[in-house]
Parts: sequence; C-alpha cells; structure tokens
Amino acid sequence: MSETNIFHAKTKLIDIQDGEELIVLINEQNAWEHGISPLDKVVLRYKDQELVLNANLTNKLVKPNEIGLYKDVSQKYKIPGDATVSVHFTQTNGKAIEALKKAINGKKLNYKETYSIMKDIADNRFTDTLITYYSAVGFFKKASDHELYEMAKAMAETGEMLHFDGVVADKHCMGGVPGNETTMIMIPLLASLGIKMPKTFSKAITSPAATGECVNVLMDISFSKKEIENLVKTQNSCLVRGGGLSLAPADEKLIKVAYPLSMQSYSRTVVSIMAKKYAMGINHSLIDIPMGPTAKVPDMKTAKRLKKKYEYVGKKLGMKVHVEITDAMQPIGAGIGATLQVREVLRVLQQHELRPMDLQNKAVFLASKIIELVGMAKGKKAYEMAYQQLKSGKAWKKMQEIIKAQRGKNPNIKSEDLKLAKFKKEVKAEKAGTVKVIDMKLINLTTRALGAPIDDQGGLYLCKKLGDKVKKNDIIYVMYANQESKIDMALENLKGKKMYEIK
Amino acid sequence: MSETNIFHAKTKLIDIQDGEELIVLINEQNAWEHGISPLDKVVLRYKDQELVLNANLTNKLVKPNEIGLYKDVSQKYKIPGDATVSVHFTQTNGKAIEALKKAINGKKLNYKETYSIMKDIADNRFTDTLITYYSAVGFFKKASDHELYEMAKAMAETGEMLHFDGVVADKHCMGGVPGNETTMIMIPLLASLGIKMPKTFSKAITSPAATGECVNVLMDISFSKKEIENLVKTQNSCLVRGGGLSLAPADEKLIKVAYPLSMQSYSRTVVSIMAKKYAMGINHSLIDIPMGPTAKVPDMKTAKRLKKKYEYVGKKLGMKVHVEITDAMQPIGAGIGATLQVREVLRVLQQHELRPMDLQNKAVFLASKIIELVGMAKGKKAYEMAYQQLKSGKAWKKMQEIIKAQRGKNPNIKSEDLKLAKFKKEVKAEKAGTVKVIDMKLINLTTRALGAPIDDQGGLYLCKKLGDKVKKNDIIYVMYANQESKIDMALENLKGKKMYEIK
Repeated sequence: MSETNIFHAKTKLIDIQDGEELIVLINEQNAWEHGISPLDKVVLRYKDQELVLNANLTNKLVKPNEIGLYKDVSQKYKIPGDATVSVHFTQTNGKAIEALKKAINGKKLNYKETYSIMKDIADNRFTDTLITYYSAVGFFKKASDHELYEMAKAMAETGEMLHFDGVVADKHCMGGVPGNETTMIMIPLLASLGIKMPKTFSKAITSPAATGECVNVLMDISFSKKEIENLVKTQNSCLVRGGGLSLAPADEKLIKVAYPLSMQSYSRTVVSIMAKKYAMGINHSLIDIPMGPTAKVPDMKTAKRLKKKYEYVGKKLGMKVHVEITDAMQPIGAGIGATLQVREVLRVLQQHELRPMDLQNKAVFLASKIIELVGMAKGKKAYEMAYQQLKSGKAWKKMQEIIKAQRGKNPNIKSEDLKLAKFKKEVKAEKAGTVKVIDMKLINLTTRALGAPIDDQGGLYLCKKLGDKVKKNDIIYVMYANQESKIDMALENLKGKKMYEIK
Repeated sequence: MSETNIFHAKTKLIDIQDGEELIVLINEQNAWEHGISPLDKVVLRYKDQELVLNANLTNKLVKPNEIGLYKDVSQKYKIPGDATVSVHFTQTNGKAIEALKKAINGKKLNYKETYSIMKDIADNRFTDTLITYYSAVGFFKKASDHELYEMAKAMAETGEMLHFDGVVADKHCMGGVPGNETTMIMIPLLASLGIKMPKTFSKAITSPAATGECVNVLMDISFSKKEIENLVKTQNSCLVRGGGLSLAPADEKLIKVAYPLSMQSYSRTVVSIMAKKYAMGINHSLIDIPMGPTAKVPDMKTAKRLKKKYEYVGKKLGMKVHVEITDAMQPIGAGIGATLQVREVLRVLQQHELRPMDLQNKAVFLASKIIELVGMAKGKKAYEMAYQQLKSGKAWKKMQEIIKAQRGKNPNIKSEDLKLAKFKKEVKAEKAGTVKVIDMKLINLTTRALGAPIDDQGGLYLCKKLGDKVKKNDIIYVMYANQESKIDMALENLKGKKMYEIK
C-alpha cells in the first residue's frame, strides 16, 4: 500500500449530513497543489485512527490547510474541530482490483485474492461501485462450498474477532417469514439456563422488520466491543447491532449495495451469516431455514442445498452446526412490523392470554434444539426444559435484566404500553369462506409500503390465519401507518392481487 | 411515475464541488417534515428544467425553505442563487428495478424493459449502485445480437437525437492500440472532400488518451446541440464530446461505473458505440477493430464475432456499416499520451519530415474505406483521393478552420510549439539486438502511471519500433511526466516485466 504524506491540516466541522458516504472537504488550492480531484479517496490520520474519505473541493468553506469534516464523520470517529490531522494519498490495493476483475471474468479466487477484496471493502478503500461489482459476482457466479468458506473466513478476519470461553451458542433465522420474532424469546430463555448467547444482527434487507428493528423498540442496540464483552459476562447474552462492532465489516457494506434491489444471493447469505458467527466467537450454531411456497426459500431442494452449505462452512470454521428446516406456510404470530412484533414477543414472554401460540411453540422448539446442540438434554427433556423457563417467568425476568443492561427505558413494559402508529385501516372480507393461502411476499411488501423498516410503528396485524373460518365483513387484517398516504399507497399496490385467498 | 410536490424553496449557492454526484442541501427541519433522509433522491423543478438530485441534510448552511446547490449543479444547469424552485418526491420507475432484477436473474429483457432501465439511468433516477449492477450484467450474461440492438436503440432514444440531411459518415476505432490517433487526421481530410463527418467521443476508459483528450489539446470539445449543428453546417464536421450533448446519456453513466475496473464488455462496447452513432444521425459507419496479441481484441475469432455484431446492430438501426479488422502488433505513431499523440497528428497533417509514416498510411487507408462506403470512389482511386487531400495541404487547411470554429487558441500551431511535461527519463537498451515484441498493454499501463489521461502531457515517446536494430545504450523510449514520483512509480511497475523484447 503506497501512501504518500500530502499535507497537515486543521479540522473544521461542517454542518452537513451526507448519509452513508464519508466526505472530507478540501480547499481547492491544496487539491490543485497535490493533484486531488473531487471524489478521489484520501487517507486522514488523527491520533491512532486512520480513515479513508472521499474528497470534495471548496474555495470558501475551508481555507488552505484546513479540512472540513461532515457531521457523519466527526461524530462517527469522534474527531473535534481545530484538531491537527494529516492527509495522505491512498490507492486501493491493486491486488484487490485484479482479484475482482478475475472474479468478474468468471474465474475462481484463492484465499489471498478473496482476502484482498474483503480487506479493501472493510477499510473503505473500495468505492460503492467496486463493492457493487463484487456483490453482482455473487448473483451471477456459483461459488463452491470451499469458496464460500474462504469468503466467510476472510470477511471475519478483516474485522474484529471476539472470543468467549466455553460453549457459545447462537440461533439464526434466514428470514422471509413475516412476524416470526423467535430470537427475542429464545435469547433470554436460553441465557436464563446459563447458555452464553451473544446475539448480533444487521439491518433488515428484504424483511419489513428484522430482529434489530424489534429489539430497538425496547432498548439500545449499539454498543462498543468492551460493552458487549461486559454484557455477555454479566447477562450471558446481548442483543446488539453487529455493524457498530466492526464485526465482519465488509458485510454491512455488501448489504448496503444489495439493499436497493431487495435481493440476496443464497450463497452470499451463508457467507454473511457464518462470517459474523465466526467473528463473534460462536462455536455452536443453530440455523433456522423457513421453507414454503411464498417464503424466502421456496422448496425442499433449495433448503437442503443451503443446509449443506451452512454445515460445510460452519464445520470448516470450527463450529458445531445444526440446521433446522421449518415449515413456513404463513406468518408466525399476528403482528408484522417492529412494534407489532414486539407486542407479540412481550405477550409470549409474559404469558399474556392473547399470546400467539404458533410463535411460542416455534421459539420453544428451536430453543430445545440448542439445548440438544450444547448437550444439556435430549428430545422431550430438552423441550420440557425450554418450556419451563417460559412458563415459570424466568425467561421474562432475564429479558428485564437485558433491557436494563442495554439502557432500555422501561424494563417493566407491558404489551399494552407500546405506542402504535397514528392511522389504522381495517380490511374486511368481501365474502365468507375459509383462509386457504396467505401470500407472505405480499405481506412483506405491504408492510414496507406502510413505512417499515424505517418507521418501526408501521405494519399489519393479522386477525385471521390459515384454516380460519371467515364471515363476510369480518376484519381480516389491520394496517398501521403514521401517514394516511402510506395506507392509500399500500391499498393501491394490493389492487388486483391476493394477500389472502378465501374459499 | 409518482411525484408528489413537497415544498417550494429559494436556492442558495454553496461553494462545494462534489465531482460527479449531484447534491442538493436541504434543511433538516424540511427534511424531517417531509420524511427525506440523507441520500434520498428528490426532483427539483426550475423553470422548464427538472433534475433529480441526491439530498444531503444541514441545520446551518441553509435555512428552512432554502435549498443549497453545489457548484457542479448550479453551473451545469445554470440555476442562479435566490431563484424559486419546487422540490418533489421521486422514486425510480418500479418497472426499471423489476427489469434489472430479471436481468440479474439471467432472464432476457424485452424492449420495454430495456428502455425502462436506460430511461432511469439517463434521467439520474438510478443510483450508481443500480447502474453498476446493470453494468455487471454485461460482463456476466451473453446478450443476443437482437438484445444488443434493442439496448443501443433504447440508449439512443432516451437522449437527444440529431439529424443531418444526406450522407452522414463516421469513423470509429475500438481502441487498445497506443498512439493510433487516425481520427484527427481523417475528419479534416474527409470533411475537406465534402463528406459530413460529425465526430463525437467520450472519455478514455482503458486507453491512456482517447480522441477527446487529444482534440482538447488544440481546441474546445464541449458544445451545445445548437453549436454542434452549426459546426456541421459550416465545417462539414465537428470534433466534440458526446457527453455534453446528452447523446445516449445512459452511456457516460455506464462508462463511469466501468472506469474503476479498466474493463469493458465487448458486447456492451458495440451497444455504446452504435447508440451514439444512431443518436448522432450517422448513416454510414466505418468501424476499425485493431487485432493483435496484446491489443484489446486478441484474435481473429473475437474480431469476427464483434464484426458480425456491429453489422447486425448497425443494419437494424438503418446504417450502412463497414468493419475493418486491422493489424495491431505495435503502437501506431511514436507518441503515446494526448500531447505526444497530437504532435504526431500535426506532423502528418503538416507533412513534417519527422511524421510517422505508419500513422499516415493507416489514416489514408481508413479514409479510403469511407470514400468507398459513401460511394465517391473505389479501390486505388479512393486511396489516391484520400492521399492527395493530405499531400496538397487541404486536410490541414480544413483542420485549421475546425480549430478556429471550435475556439482553439492557435490555428497556426506547429508540432514544435506543443508544451511537453516537465520531467523526462530516457530508457536505454541493456543489450544489442532487434525489437521483436512490444507489449501494448504495458505501454498503456505505463502511460497511465505517467499521468494520462488526466494529465495530457504525461506519456511515452517510442524511439524504436518492431524490427528496429538496437545497440547497447540506445534510447528505446522516453518517459514524460509532470511529477518525478510518477516516473519512479512507472519504473517500479515495470520491474520484472518486458515492455520491449529485444533479441
């Protein structure tokens, strides 16, 4: 990596928020002297930090030998105004570009090449354009299981690696099933049994609300490495954003460029998930693959192929892996969207009379599989052990401790206390019959139209599930949104489509 | 396209130059009220213009109901400060995203789908990430000739379309051969014969200096549609940047995302070139495909496949097409890099004693092929006709008129007047022998390391060509650069590699 020192400068904080991009404002005179063009990448060194930023030029906003830092940058890296920094030339590792071109040309990469790409993505040396090409390779070229393992390893090893002593377990669901918030039930349940469950998650890509959005309704999810280690020590668990931790940092950047497509490559999903487990120090990993005609994984053939990949990659990374292919014909629980899902979770943990039994049963079943995986009990005994933690209130008690430890405002919150969105719209049956099909992809799209995942209060509450008898004018589901226009748009999008099939 | 009116605002000019991205600064209060996040795209309407910009947020730099325009935007769209504009929500055409996903999934697109993608790219509704995915499709999926035709048609029809009466001809070289600046010789030569030659070009992608960079050494290359039409009317020709004209506007955006890879898909090259010819109103098109082991097109099989594609797409677009596969074993002319190439061009046009005969011969040969294509003469007569325009000084006289018409400072410029780079380094033979091989890819890479195409003075001058006898310590080539460090880097890059093979 050739990095020539360019110049020293004083920082000036600029009141602009750019979103994801990291910008540094450079005076045009400095830029001209040193041959910096707009959007060139430069390295900025401050104390022991080194960050790669995109250059923007100005005549007036900063003087020569002054550099402007946007809000996002100064906050993220805690750099004050009037601090002395040095600015350096950078260039992407030529090897990484060569490796990327090789991959685009359809050739296999060796570990060094894959590592060089992951490293440049992790260090912000790859532009979004280059990251997108690498993302595209995942859609076009089938990778071997061994390549997936190498990608996962490289993705983990180019970021922070955590280590916890002894048995460290994790539960991960591939998603695609609306509702289905088993994680927030299982983590406190298993932690209350003394199993270490350090759970991390990233942003929702295709789902209207992933675990991160849900947990955030009750407590903070952004913690430093030290804080996370402390949470696991004191709570046996954590429920935190992986991104803030710099865990497999290339992953969030790859997710970001996949986001506008609402599309994920199955194989890359295996890489993304297993890299984060590995970096998090997980050694016992349960993967839930929901399978059904309108779920993310549509058929048993695909599910089994994926199962094999998880098992291969996990084993190579030194983990015990159990993959459970679960039935996904309809949403689990009745609430879809972060706040509405959390209401379901609280009802199960608090054994509320309105609790969704399908969600409870799935959470207990999966918890029993982890109990088996770590060797605490087998079969019926494992199931009974899991169920008792819920029934006795021990799981909820543990959850209250987690809420407190993660700076949640109200550890005594009841499901009725949750604030729902301002506007609601009840959608009624046009004719009588029985619910035969629920289209989960349409449920996800509709929930997104209602504001999720950005607005955690937007969503759906399903009053009817598969097999339910329906009379004409019965409420089938209720839409929630904070703008009436979103409800109009959601209804508009549903015209001519069938979210529910009633016969 | 759903575009809700958000609010009216006064413009404020902000002294920031961002490069390619189009930014609008919005006050955080406005953003909050209307649900705009950083990097959301918004539509700005000013008079009869409508532009799509990326939102950045600020508290202080602009007040509520004021919006900040960066230099790039206010200059490009000629929007003054304190002007009233309206800001609207936008969203990409959902159809375009669906079409893109279909393409990524390996399926064929119909014309409507291709058009929707090109339209959203052209209108700046696609983010760079989405454009990159579409670019990546070109590397991964083989398109049929018919798909290429539809892409070229859509790319042209989503931008400005020019029309000139009668025979309108063009010469295009696929590139990859260093030097080889035949265009700047052929255009005045053929225009002086009364053939309409409206030449447009885009930025160099893989070459160290394309025609645009070279022409720009002598004259302006950015003109409006009206100015270009006037140039063609008065000069029978023009030598202008296509990008400024909004000709096949999706093309420059696709080129931009391919740039960091220094890679082009052959098929997409056909699309890019033929779309621009079609939009420019060309009806007689000569395509030069240089073919050789270290050229862009390495073998006859690839060259013939490409020839077929050019012919198919051109014919479907209503053109007469002639494709010439030319021998590309070594650079044409001795100068590589914009200024050094222009010196060669001037020497040929002015019939200077040091003129490179290989460049002259190729230019005359290709000019004779256009004379044949438009039906003015055939075979030897066509060749003689072309040669006489050069010999008699008529081609140079025409070039002087073009330089004047395109605001060039010195229409009487001599090759000796050109200012070369500050630093030079003579590279000498380590042993005696004959030049057997010249690696053109290494020549291109070295010229780029010396500053091209951004620095038009950086480059190489080759003192020896294939077959030349060399004594020990003879100068083989000379490096030119404006920073000594670039010469060091170029030498460093060449270690262990052979630009010249002397035996």
